[in-house]
Amino acid sequence: MIKVGIVGGTGYTGVELLRILAAHPEVQLTCITSRKEDGLPVAEMYPSLRGRVSLAFSSPDNTRLGDCDVVFFATPHGVAMSQARELLASGVKIIDLAADFRIKNVAEFEKWYGIPHTCPDLLEGAVYGLPELQREAIRSSRLIGNPGCYPTTMQLGYYPFLKAGLINPGQLIADCKSGVSGAGRKAEIGTLFSEASDNLKAYSVAGHRHVPETLEQLRKMTNASVGLVFTPHLIPMIRGMHSTLYATLNHPVSNDELQQLVEDTYRNEPFVDVMPFASHPETRSVRGSNTLRISLHRPGNGTTLIILVVQDNLMKGASGQAVQCMNLMSGLPETVGLTQLPILP
Amino acid sequence: MIKVGIVGGTGYTGVELLRILAAHPEVQLTCITSRKEDGLPVAEMYPSLRGRVSLAFSSPDNTRLGDCDVVFFATPHGVAMSQARELLASGVKIIDLAADFRIKNVAEFEKWYGIPHTCPDLLEGAVYGLPELQREAIRSSRLIGNPGCYPTTMQLGYYPFLKAGLINPGQLIADCKSGVSGAGRKAEIGTLFSEASDNLKAYSVAGHRHVPETLEQLRKMTNASVGLVFTPHLIPMIRGMHSTLYATLNHPVSNDELQQLVEDTYRNEPFVDVMPFASHPETRSVRGSNTLRISLHRPGNGTTLIILVVQDNLMKGASGQAVQCMNLMSGLPETVGLTQLPILP
Amino acid sequence: MIKVGIVGGTGYTGVELLRILAAHPEVQLTCITSRKEDGLPVAEMYPSLRGRVSLAFSSPDNTRLGDCDVVFFATPHGVAMSQARELLASGVKIIDLAADFRIKNVAEFEKWYGIPHTCPDLLEGAVYGLPELQREAIRSSRLIGNPGCYPTTMQLGYYPFLKAGLINPGQLIADCKSGVSGAGRKAEIGTLFSEASDNLKAYSVAGHRHVPETLEQLRKMTNASVGLVFTPHLIPMIRGMHSTLYATLNHPVSNDELQQLVEDTYRNEPFVDVMPFASHPETRSVRGSNTLRISLHRPGNGTTLIILVVQDNLMKGASGQAVQCMNLMSGLPETVGLTQLPILP
Amino acid sequence: MIKVGIVGGTGYTGVELLRILAAHPEVQLTCITSRKEDGLPVAEMYPSLRGRVSLAFSSPDNTRLGDCDVVFFATPHGVAMSQARELLASGVKIIDLAADFRIKNVAEFEKWYGIPHTCPDLLEGAVYGLPELQREAIRSSRLIGNPGCYPTTMQLGYYPFLKAGLINPGQLIADCKSGVSGAGRKAEIGTLFSEASDNLKAYSVAGHRHVPETLEQLRKMTNASVGLVFTPHLIPMIRGMHSTLYATLNHPVSNDELQQLVEDTYRNEPFVDVMPFASHPETRSVRGSNTLRISLHRPGNGTTLIILVVQDNLMKGASGQAVQCMNLMSGLPETVGLTQLPILP
Repeated sequence: MIKVGIVGGTGYTGVELLRILAAHPEVQLTCITSRKEDGLPVAEMYPSLRGRVSLAFSSPDNTRLGDCDVVFFATPHGVAMSQARELLASGVKIIDLAADFRIKNVAEFEKWYGIPHTCPDLLEGAVYGLPELQREAIRSSRLIGNPGCYPTTMQLGYYPFLKAGLINPGQLIADCKSGVSGAGRKAEIGTLFSEASDNLKAYSVAGHRHVPETLEQLRKMTNASVGLVFTPHLIPMIRGMHSTLYATLNHPVSNDELQQLVEDTYRNEPFVDVMPFASHPETRSVRGSNTLRISLHRPGNGTTLIILVVQDNLMKGASGQAVQCMNLMSGLPETVGLTQLPILP
Repeated sequence: MIKVGIVGGTGYTGVELLRILAAHPEVQLTCITSRKEDGLPVAEMYPSLRGRVSLAFSSPDNTRLGDCDVVFFATPHGVAMSQARELLASGVKIIDLAADFRIKNVAEFEKWYGIPHTCPDLLEGAVYGLPELQREAIRSSRLIGNPGCYPTTMQLGYYPFLKAGLINPGQLIADCKSGVSGAGRKAEIGTLFSEASDNLKAYSVAGHRHVPETLEQLRKMTNASVGLVFTPHLIPMIRGMHSTLYATLNHPVSNDELQQLVEDTYRNEPFVDVMPFASHPETRSVRGSNTLRISLHRPGNGTTLIILVVQDNLMKGASGQAVQCMNLMSGLPETVGLTQLPILP
Repeated sequence: MIKVGIVGGTGYTGVELLRILAAHPEVQLTCITSRKEDGLPVAEMYPSLRGRVSLAFSSPDNTRLGDCDVVFFATPHGVAMSQARELLASGVKIIDLAADFRIKNVAEFEKWYGIPHTCPDLLEGAVYGLPELQREAIRSSRLIGNPGCYPTTMQLGYYPFLKAGLINPGQLIADCKSGVSGAGRKAEIGTLFSEASDNLKAYSVAGHRHVPETLEQLRKMTNASVGLVFTPHLIPMIRGMHSTLYATLNHPVSNDELQQLVEDTYRNEPFVDVMPFASHPETRSVRGSNTLRISLHRPGNGTTLIILVVQDNLMKGASGQAVQCMNLMSGLPETVGLTQLPILP
Repeated sequence: MIKVGIVGGTGYTGVELLRILAAHPEVQLTCITSRKEDGLPVAEMYPSLRGRVSLAFSSPDNTRLGDCDVVFFATPHGVAMSQARELLASGVKIIDLAADFRIKNVAEFEKWYGIPHTCPDLLEGAVYGLPELQREAIRSSRLIGNPGCYPTTMQLGYYPFLKAGLINPGQLIADCKSGVSGAGRKAEIGTLFSEASDNLKAYSVAGHRHVPETLEQLRKMTNASVGLVFTPHLIPMIRGMHSTLYATLNHPVSNDELQQLVEDTYRNEPFVDVMPFASHPETRSVRGSNTLRISLHRPGNGTTLIILVVQDNLMKGASGQAVQCMNLMSGLPETVGLTQLPILP
């Protein structure tokens, strides 16, 4: 059994980790910290866990995280970096669901997140936790920067075509739509039910923190210069992310070849489902599961390729992906604990 | 492995059965019938099942249901009774999610459902599939009438107090609220998104089909005459049922005694969770799971007892309960395949 | 033109007042105060008002409320009472949308609201602003305590029957359902979209602040002792309130007589619509309008009377009712500025 | 008073016309036809209109539409063209909310709508009812093809820039999001609450009927060849449309110049609101109103221009725009009856 600790488990990625790990056959939930909720049984904050999780939150000061095999940070940006060195020294493996270890370029990190990076020397050893593209590196890693939700969809969507040189890397447009849980469990006006339901808006169009991370990864897929326009939208649904990815084809290519390419790329991936050409994946078809679905469109057989990608932003977009990394790092089958079927309706 | 067939699997209770059974370790999904969708892979209608269910719908005419160990009817009222005799004769166990075998009183059935009962002789052997109150009868049964969603909450809520003679059976008021999936997957104006969202209404206040079934069961719990006012409401949520049950206390009794009674009643029940006195259970705390939660209130310590009950109407209110019955009928542990944690948020 | 000021216009009742008053032909919006948003144009906070409201928020310290004819307080409880004396002395009429002037019994107010009442002497002159029951008193009043949303439905629902002595005042059960906007525009976890949507819960069942106000008013309608069980529920819709009111009939009475009584009671009321017997009013049928709809049910022609009442909680339940009072106090036709048709779908 | 008839008023554009026209000071609602609902008072189907609309539906056979001044067709495609000739001959003005008179190219119409056009000779005299771009033609027209909802946003968004030659007409990408009411009031599985809520999907990506109409209009704005990729998405909200329009800038131009251009274009338009540069308009900011809001973005000051456009799909996207046309055709002020403020929250 793997002894697992969670730092900062009061948010949505935290409770989603708990939902997964409470049923994971190889995991022993050992501790979950929250300074503010010290002593509160987790199931009192989240009654959905009554009878399934008996842990209480404990103050970080009184919690021996060093005894864990793996520690997840489901915390705001900046927390993981402050504790990583000590935990690594104790032999603990770390998976950070925030951005601290996602970006190699320290200047970019500091520019977008507005905080100094306190352990840039650890960045080199950190692995970007997208198993489909970094599987072997993750297996041997001890420090994972778990990808952002939007970046996961953009990378897995564009990857086959950038890699094959079929699309123009300088003209990528990602029109992305996220459910409200992506904003986290924070008391804020903008995500109140009465503000966010029966409504739709774009946000952060001038620049969103997921841009630098995505650019850094997309650049690995091509030698050419990458240009990305990223437009996130807030959608009145709890979970779910739908990315509508536009790209310009470089060469004459048939639709069959495009479809074949993406099917070949992901044929053996347990969590990537390539749907038939011209399908319309729905976010609810992955609700509560770790599956990401992709389909291709090419309106009028022209030069614009559309890649539709859906995922559950809390699963493949966050906590599910983190557990997928944990499985790899722990020598377990990649899918163990992650076989939940989507809830539909 | 239990060979399982599903008759009429295109509705919401059907796809929920598929979600549960596709992950059930002791079940082999053998066939699923739909006259209209003959030949269509199930996963094309429900992409959430892609990669998990490879069955296709088959026409009832070409389907050897008689080879199954258990057949679920996820059909409109009246279908199961037309096929029950033959299947039982073939040694198949039947669980009907419609009303055909819920009500012993044939006249009542025919009055409320508007169709003649074609096999009243089978009713005597049929068992009402509410495991918490009929566990032993279910174990040895071959024909189950699976309870309605509302009746499950009313019975499990009122049972401890009616049995103990603490409340007046003649003055029960059940103000119940259901998510829209309770209306099924039928093309109807009233349950369109644009009609049912951002809206609330009561319906069928003059009389709802779940009344006769509930009365028949409640009468088993008391010698006195039962009077029930049942007011269902349609709520803009997909899943979830919240019953607010009112009763008048007969005798002086302390809140501790009331709480103790309901805790004692359900102490060993794997799917009934008694919450602390004066809690407010939320429907989302059981979303996607087979758990039903109960809490008690007594405003001003007066003579009115309020029993709050929540469940997922498609799980404990329908398909989850049906699989719970199947487990019992098949000699399996009652909880196998039913340990999904609730999805929250 | 009536010069109108609004104190504390950043919440939902404030913006709803602005929506009504910006189109009110007899009103000149003069000032709207917010200490925190001093200087911010109202239309920047609420883009729905762009081009329609040119006012900016002003600090209370720099705002000459004394020059207004009418001032609305759309503030937390306790604010209106601190400014009422001075404004009344300046000849300003006051309509408080909070609870400061709703309850005559100071001890009850202080018990439920947890703050001392700082001007109990003004309470005697204050009028409870429910025009259907207090029309003449409102006309001549200078200080209005605008009713709570739930209390409006309970009073208008029970009134005809209590007045006529047809129901037992000691056995009233009000099972009420409110949209989330009733909780106001406050940054709180519990009303986040990801918490409150696709969910339902009861709350404050042990005791809600709208009880004392309702009891005080119901007691005026009968000589007998009033017993009220009030169970509020939070519903995933923005606006809308549905009260399901239960009462026990005292005497043999026909359904026609019951229907006739309520129709006679409200025949000339511009904002109360009595629907046919056994109708099911929907909250969306009043969305955005000042109309309240009522219908009666009597299951099985028994002794339980069910009164269904729907309203828009921000209109007839708050700001619409306040403007209705303003019209009366100002000698205007009661309906001026309040003829918005409901938005459906 | 203008005598107005509505053909086919049972759908959402029909009830929205009724909501507007019932309060329009210059309109006398004369008749509303429905073969299926002959004799049914409109307010029984739409209780929101109780007390405000006393008309009943009448069979088209018994309805003297020829006595009307203006007739709206809120019908499926193909109905208006079958009655237009006779009504025009009677001197009636016609506004068709379907597609019969939107497209001049008959072959294109027949290809996309799958029905023959039965009065192509009338097309020449028909005017495309987008007042901001066709005001004078509408004033003198007697036959209006009211624009589709998506096309309204695409045209008003792209118009200033195409006209000025600032963007490349061959590379337009319109990523559009619509509330579910856009699908109409039809009993269909796909728009049930339990299917469409908490969900998001693209649809008709291979080709949507609004493409030919939009192309025909966009081509008027430029001499160059127009290339449009149009991707509609279904969003879990009742009303509201958000179009995220992408274009490539042709020339070096400052953001101020871009903003100035769009402000100048729409300065005197009563129903087009140009928001500050880099704003994020929300659909709810126009809910229930005839206003369309536009804002511009230019990520990284690069060559991609993003134009955000929001409207209420049933108002500016359908019935509000139709009444705007009626006002123009009738010599009334353009805004009369269309001054409803948006409902927020």
